[in-house]
Amino acid sequence: MRMRLKLKTVFVLYFMVSLLGLIYALMQLGQRCDCRDHDLSKDQQISQLRGELQKLQEHIKTELSKKTDVPKIYVITPTYARLVQKAELTRLSHTFLHVPQLHWIVVEDAPQPTPLVTDFLAASGLTYTHLYKLTPKDRKLQEGDPSWLKPRGAEQRNEGLRWLREMGSAAKGKEAAALEEAVVYFADDDNTYSLQLFEEMRYTYRVSVWPVGLVGGMKFERPVVEDGKVVRFHTGWRPNRPFPIDMAGFAVSLRFVLTSPQARFDGDAQMGFLESSFLQHLVTMDDLEPKADLCTKVLVWHTRTEKPKMKREDALQKQGMGSDPDVEV
Amino acid sequence: MRMRLKLKTVFVLYFMVSLLGLIYALMQLGQRCDCRDHDLSKDQQISQLRGELQKLQEHIKTELSKKTDVPKIYVITPTYARLVQKAELTRLSHTFLHVPQLHWIVVEDAPQPTPLVTDFLAASGLTYTHLYKLTPKDRKLQEGDPSWLKPRGAEQRNEGLRWLREMGSAAKGKEAAALEEAVVYFADDDNTYSLQLFEEMRYTYRVSVWPVGLVGGMKFERPVVEDGKVVRFHTGWRPNRPFPIDMAGFAVSLRFVLTSPQARFDGDAQMGFLESSFLQHLVTMDDLEPKADLCTKVLVWHTRTEKPKMKREDALQKQGMGSDPDVEV
Repeated sequence: MRMRLKLKTVFVLYFMVSLLGLIYALMQLGQRCDCRDHDLSKDQQISQLRGELQKLQEHIKTELSKKTDVPKIYVITPTYARLVQKAELTRLSHTFLHVPQLHWIVVEDAPQPTPLVTDFLAASGLTYTHLYKLTPKDRKLQEGDPSWLKPRGAEQRNEGLRWLREMGSAAKGKEAAALEEAVVYFADDDNTYSLQLFEEMRYTYRVSVWPVGLVGGMKFERPVVEDGKVVRFHTGWRPNRPFPIDMAGFAVSLRFVLTSPQARFDGDAQMGFLESSFLQHLVTMDDLEPKADLCTKVLVWHTRTEKPKMKREDALQKQGMGSDPDVEV
Repeated sequence: MRMRLKLKTVFVLYFMVSLLGLIYALMQLGQRCDCRDHDLSKDQQISQLRGELQKLQEHIKTELSKKTDVPKIYVITPTYARLVQKAELTRLSHTFLHVPQLHWIVVEDAPQPTPLVTDFLAASGLTYTHLYKLTPKDRKLQEGDPSWLKPRGAEQRNEGLRWLREMGSAAKGKEAAALEEAVVYFADDDNTYSLQLFEEMRYTYRVSVWPVGLVGGMKFERPVVEDGKVVRFHTGWRPNRPFPIDMAGFAVSLRFVLTSPQARFDGDAQMGFLESSFLQHLVTMDDLEPKADLCTKVLVWHTRTEKPKMKREDALQKQGMGSDPDVEV
């Protein structure tokens, strides 16, 4: 009887204790350890954070895609050393910095790359290729020659075209497909370009054309468009040239440049015929694609910068008091 | 004995079953319900996401703060109607578009705002104020006068200063505090400005100065700095003028402009004394703050654009075949 009582007591006690233990364990499960509720709040937090992250990533992607989802523009600029060179390149670079997907091909008329242009381009923030090609002496303007006597920049533009063709033949796959869409423009370093101009030329099938302001002794020259086609040219001089059109007034599709290896500038061309020497390998007037609201808007100006007078500089230099030659201008 | 056996058996069985239950419960705790490991991975995920989010937010904030956390630059540009006006304003605006917190005050030399400048500014994407002030006839250069005979733009710059002072006296609280930090620069529409120039002038206590390229018949003019102080000027002409310094070569703190109402440009000043007529109200040479690496770098160029020849335009107009006057150039 004592034994039975003892056992029963032990049994009841054990039953009670284990029951409390179980209840406690179940409570633990319900409270601290039910990961479902716990998970829910954390999962909510995670999905919320993921959402915000995605939104920001989308935002940044949109900003960038504005700049990468469009055909490239390869701009070929011949340049030569002179007092205003750095100033001209500086303001030109400020324009180009606003143009998405612009690749600047700068070709110096020099026997080797100059430190001024090299340093300038490196600090410009632009995507660029730096080339050089010295104009042979017999083709070069001499001091005192009128600027129209010999065409300037022909060799340098051809060097730019050579580089494009070399790059084109090396390109493969996705890269080659991107080149199919691209366009080539010849931009001298003293002209003035609106930003709209680049969006007009960006989609060029063969050769696109538009008006050029302040050129050829005129307020502007332009192709005259009838029924969406170029039918003649408004120009003050020899309108019957094959293409009476300034260098700043046309762009060519890169695909077309790559498939027409014969198209190049003739450095011996007569005055006013340099553009024609290149274009007549490529198109007829009938093929020209009029841009800038059917050639009714002036979006580029053939500005020319005065050669600065150095009268006082020369006088001071004779006295050994000239401007410090170590300061780049 | 049977009873004892039964109780003992029940007790042992219950003990075994409850033990299994407990073991099972403990296993559950360790596996499915130990939220600590679970938490660790989720917490890690959350902190990782928070980190990425913060990085992106920082990135976007930095991009924006570049534009808003710096003192404002008020640029006063006098301009007048001419063939190259739109071209000049176009490339100038491309430079200004790169400069954070720039407010462009364009003052036309005209009896009323012209449609060309009005439309141009509206489409420019810049923060601007469009003013006009006609130069009285007796102070104006006449056709054929040499450009140095009378100073140009004095009335327009004074009109810009008038607007600044009017705005300054109306500003309150936070707005007024921001003006305390701002700086005023006089930028003609034909010069060439590097972007670095604006960061040099941005923090000006009174009057800051720097070299100007291609000006006064020199490669550059500049203040000569010794021991951090301007001690004289490198210039090719009358170095003893109070401030032999080009309009493009200095900036003034707006606070200083607002507290010195007497400072203005004298339209009757002798050639080369226009800058002095303004600056001598404000500072002595001792107060000048040399910028651009102690005035050893050329960051602005006094470029001049050629007046385009209209020979062929005039000839064609006589034949009624001139360029369409409805096309803006």
